[in-house]
Amino acid sequence: MNTSKPAAGKAPAGGGRETARRARTRERLLDAAYRQFCEHGINGTSIEAITDDAGFTRGAFYSNFASKEELFLALTERENRARLETLRDRFDEVVAPLGRVAGKPDPELIEGAIADILAVQPDNRQWCLLNSEFKLLAMREPQVAPRFLESVRTFQQELAAMVDTALASVGLRFSVDSGHLTRLLLDHFESAMQEAILAGAEDAERAVRDNVMRTLPSLVHSLTEVRPPGS
Amino acid sequence: MNTSKPAAGKAPAGGGRETARRARTRERLLDAAYRQFCEHGINGTSIEAITDDAGFTRGAFYSNFASKEELFLALTERENRARLETLRDRFDEVVAPLGRVAGKPDPELIEGAIADILAVQPDNRQWCLLNSEFKLLAMREPQVAPRFLESVRTFQQELAAMVDTALASVGLRFSVDSGHLTRLLLDHFESAMQEAILAGAEDAERAVRDNVMRTLPSLVHSLTEVRPPGS
Repeated sequence: MNTSKPAAGKAPAGGGRETARRARTRERLLDAAYRQFCEHGINGTSIEAITDDAGFTRGAFYSNFASKEELFLALTERENRARLETLRDRFDEVVAPLGRVAGKPDPELIEGAIADILAVQPDNRQWCLLNSEFKLLAMREPQVAPRFLESVRTFQQELAAMVDTALASVGLRFSVDSGHLTRLLLDHFESAMQEAILAGAEDAERAVRDNVMRTLPSLVHSLTEVRPPGS
Repeated sequence: MNTSKPAAGKAPAGGGRETARRARTRERLLDAAYRQFCEHGINGTSIEAITDDAGFTRGAFYSNFASKEELFLALTERENRARLETLRDRFDEVVAPLGRVAGKPDPELIEGAIADILAVQPDNRQWCLLNSEFKLLAMREPQVAPRFLESVRTFQQELAAMVDTALASVGLRFSVDSGHLTRLLLDHFESAMQEAILAGAEDAERAVRDNVMRTLPSLVHSLTEVRPPGS
């Protein structure tokens, strides 16, 4: 680990420190937008409301984002990346117990692995509301749609690859296409959160876990098989 | 079939003809709201825009619906009912070929049945946009949420019961809870339509069919089993 500070005056103009400051400004604008969008919705949030909340001028906004749509796409990408990283940190650990038995794991082991994955999910209630609003806006806005779709597909593909690798490491695989199955599980997870919000669940994350745990373990168990040797 | 007209003056005050006229007014208001919501979104549609389109006064609106929210709930219920009826008309016919073979049907037979069910779906593109907007509005509006959720659950339960009955009639069943599986398939269907819209597919219904046909047949085949005799 290199803890030495760069010598003053040695950094090139617009170099490391400038880049770091720009990145911090961008992050603070994204944080402020997240708060404002959660409270007032995207259409109800002005660029002023975002810059006021972040403590910046409109100039700072436009030197980072061309528009409010640009910012919500950046927010989607940041959130998806953070969620994938959280999952990546835990996935091998969560899947490891499935490899300690020979053959196909019992339903209880699969249930435990799914519960562990759900337990590390961050605040999903607010994100579900925001994401539903982003998606609707993107569906109605042909200029925004392709980039929104790209971030959805990247998320699905990276998650599917992660699931594949983790299952392969313990000698398992899905009996149906893992990309398709991962998408199906993500769709279900999102709809369970939407229903928890509609039901006015005080602890929406818990309501989702209870709902998903009734559905997924037996489904995933039915669709998991031992990987043939050498495959 | 009784084709005789009621004798003039014999109908009780506010009776059959009045009821039929009221029902037609209500239907015309719902049709107009559907058109206006599709074009301008719910928030962008005033009650005036709906009554103008339908050719009625505001008075006619309020004698049928307490609010715009009340109307969109009625629209959701009407649409869900129509979709269930369309499916009910076709389901037995579509599932019948699965019963003509002994034992578990081949993947091709299941693929054919799913394709037939998808082929009778009405316009889903517009409905998907409207339904996404309704759902978002209901999630943010605790007064609307419970009734919206109730209509979602009624739809899911009636569809699951229909699937169960049709499979039982040909000696089959799902190896996992059919209510859960039906929900999962509905979630996937909705998300496939959202992706087709995001992708700017010219024929969104066709894009959904292509997408869903890559995923569902092998999944449903894996989860279908022969019903043990006497069960």
